[in-house]
Amino acid sequence: MQDSSPTVEPLDWLDAVRWNNDDLVPAIAQDATTGDILMMAWMNRESLALTAAEGQAVYWSRSRGKLWRKGESSGHGQTIVEIRLDCDEDVVLLKVEQAGGIACHTGRKSCFYRRLEDGTWVSVDPVLRDPDEIYGANHGGGHHE
Amino acid sequence: MQDSSPTVEPLDWLDAVRWNNDDLVPAIAQDATTGDILMMAWMNRESLALTAAEGQAVYWSRSRGKLWRKGESSGHGQTIVEIRLDCDEDVVLLKVEQAGGIACHTGRKSCFYRRLEDGTWVSVDPVLRDPDEIYGANHGGGHHE
Repeated sequence: MQDSSPTVEPLDWLDAVRWNNDDLVPAIAQDATTGDILMMAWMNRESLALTAAEGQAVYWSRSRGKLWRKGESSGHGQTIVEIRLDCDEDVVLLKVEQAGGIACHTGRKSCFYRRLEDGTWVSVDPVLRDPDEIYGANHGGGHHE
Repeated sequence: MQDSSPTVEPLDWLDAVRWNNDDLVPAIAQDATTGDILMMAWMNRESLALTAAEGQAVYWSRSRGKLWRKGESSGHGQTIVEIRLDCDEDVVLLKVEQAGGIACHTGRKSCFYRRLEDGTWVSVDPVLRDPDEIYGANHGGGHHE
């Protein structure tokens, strides 16, 4: 026999994640090419399973209480390059290809566009595309789609 | 008058952070030079204030219920290059210089050393230094110092 390894249940890797009291895990999205950190959002078990199965980032929207396929209204989806887990098994890292080069609902590359300078948060990254153009003028913000 | 801007309370920037129900915020540490994501830990208001004031990463250890000056036992401190805040004001990003090039208590560069491959988490990054050497042989793991 070439392979005598025991059969592995297909969802064992999801059991290895230490879900928090709300059954969620934080997921950091990083641009696989530039290394830029794009955003952090949350995943439940179903969204992480779908992310791996579909190869597209699917989060859990805490505010809306439902699955959130990144890009479903913005077109700015995230194609999965790698999924990583940290030493505590309680944070997931996604290396992604960011469609449109825009992850943030404000039309910026990254959600981390404010930098602390002399005791003030200062916006230092440009808006690449008007949110009205991304979501339509009556989008109500488009936040977390 | 050269400067007619209103007086800013020195801690306003801390009030801008949306602390969670446990009065914490997740903080992602990124290597400022390589862009590698090193770890994610948590901060309370005091630890974020200290991080900015001292220019060294200070987290809140949830397991020990106390401030955790990164590197206090490992020597692997993190010097702050930038502090950023995301669009929701509920995640902090630290760009840091990582002492020793090792952020993880396992002796690896990054805590995100496991990659999902064919439904299994596989360790793909090398141990750069034996944890026994970092923390001493009787360290009990050194986890979160």
